[in-house]
Amino acid sequence: MGDFSQLAINQFTTLHQWSLPEAVEGYARNGAHAMGIVRDKLHEVGVVEARRLLRTHEMQVTCLCVGGLLTDSDPHRFRANLADSRRAIDEAGELGAECLVFVAGGLPEGSRDLPAARARCLEGLAELLPYAKSAGVTLALEPLHPMICAFRSCLSTLGQANDWIEALGAGPELGIVIDVYHVWWDPDLEREIARAAGRVASFHICDWLMETTDLRLDRGMMGDGVIDIRRIRRLVEATGYDGYREVEIFSARNWWKRDPDEVVAIAKARYLSDVV
Amino acid sequence: MGDFSQLAINQFTTLHQWSLPEAVEGYARNGAHAMGIVRDKLHEVGVVEARRLLRTHEMQVTCLCVGGLLTDSDPHRFRANLADSRRAIDEAGELGAECLVFVAGGLPEGSRDLPAARARCLEGLAELLPYAKSAGVTLALEPLHPMICAFRSCLSTLGQANDWIEALGAGPELGIVIDVYHVWWDPDLEREIARAAGRVASFHICDWLMETTDLRLDRGMMGDGVIDIRRIRRLVEATGYDGYREVEIFSARNWWKRDPDEVVAIAKARYLSDVV
Repeated sequence: MGDFSQLAINQFTTLHQWSLPEAVEGYARNGAHAMGIVRDKLHEVGVVEARRLLRTHEMQVTCLCVGGLLTDSDPHRFRANLADSRRAIDEAGELGAECLVFVAGGLPEGSRDLPAARARCLEGLAELLPYAKSAGVTLALEPLHPMICAFRSCLSTLGQANDWIEALGAGPELGIVIDVYHVWWDPDLEREIARAAGRVASFHICDWLMETTDLRLDRGMMGDGVIDIRRIRRLVEATGYDGYREVEIFSARNWWKRDPDEVVAIAKARYLSDVV
Repeated sequence: MGDFSQLAINQFTTLHQWSLPEAVEGYARNGAHAMGIVRDKLHEVGVVEARRLLRTHEMQVTCLCVGGLLTDSDPHRFRANLADSRRAIDEAGELGAECLVFVAGGLPEGSRDLPAARARCLEGLAELLPYAKSAGVTLALEPLHPMICAFRSCLSTLGQANDWIEALGAGPELGIVIDVYHVWWDPDLEREIARAAGRVASFHICDWLMETTDLRLDRGMMGDGVIDIRRIRRLVEATGYDGYREVEIFSARNWWKRDPDEVVAIAKARYLSDVV
């Protein structure tokens, strides 16, 4: 049967098929009892109803996705995104999520000043940390692949995330998400995973397809691509991380079009054959 | 009129429009007197005829593209690619090119072992260096964007290129190509460009389009995207580099479909407005 006690499914994996109630029920029915939650889906039902569903189906919440996006040079939009991140922290706390995934944000419209965007994001993050601390929520910095630097995340490498954590000197309210998709190519991978010891708040899995057709929505199922997922899992777990391995697949052309029960069943099979 | 004495055009920019004779003549007619040459195009006319054309049009050769691709785990193919790289070194020497662009190669078919691919490439490079040295040719390592790591280049960052150079301890037969497209996102950009001081053999320019639709063939013209090209040029030139700024645009959906004289004219205008 296999041991699925450390398997989690991120809701992005069935984004186009299942609402939050359907996903909670569907993942549980398929034997996965931990999940990452997408905020838009959460807002469709509200936190109170979500808590009830999670309790009913004995579902743990790994991460809430996402807060951050703090690169805007327009002060009004920057403050609005800070406020939204505070709401996300509240929601993560109310759901008992292990962390809130922090996505940095890309270049503001019309800007080419990447160092400034990075500096602004770091300032915003520093401002959020006391709020996260008082809420007992971990902000988990997720470096995203350099190919989506321009429009989504100026936080591009694990090394940069480790540098930010060093600069902020924060406690357990600050962590890191390691997603194999975003970091597998990194020549400094071993060193920077080791450096993240004690900070790993979430570990995400999927695969890199040799024929990738989209910069954001064409991830593969574990085993269908070229990432040595098992090697990266071992490196992460060698830091002491013993939490969930969370399947997160953005796939407009394939997995988002499939029967979601089939998607979860295949993810479980690949979890055994290509991850653990 | 503007000073175009440091402008070069890489032949990839008009790959689908012009043969080598047409490109040499066309670039010269448009006032560009240095170019990067694509080997497939060179082979259509041969080195002897190419030299004659270059002389006739007073055209300098910046780089020859490409040698390398030394990641294959099949010993026969690995040796074949080494042999081909030696031929490329010969050609670069005969053309008087400033360097031969070295592209590492991606993962071998069916492999997920990226560290092994990188180690193999470094071994192959070490084997090529004495040949390059005796030919008086600089092998210029070009780190390519992490998004094409799987199929094209396991050399993914400037930091990794600098590490390889340190590991090899070679002389002037080993250099680096800095292409803004491949490195603009790098959080360590300033540090690693500074570290490459004295090694910069070629500097390539184009732009990153906010809406990028292809992982390899959708580069933008300078000024059409989000790269602060001028900032990177200044960082590169602060190392002492005072060579060409070479326009290299892979663009299946736009620039490869345009009138090549128009492409060069626009590149010249953008060179003045967005580069120098």
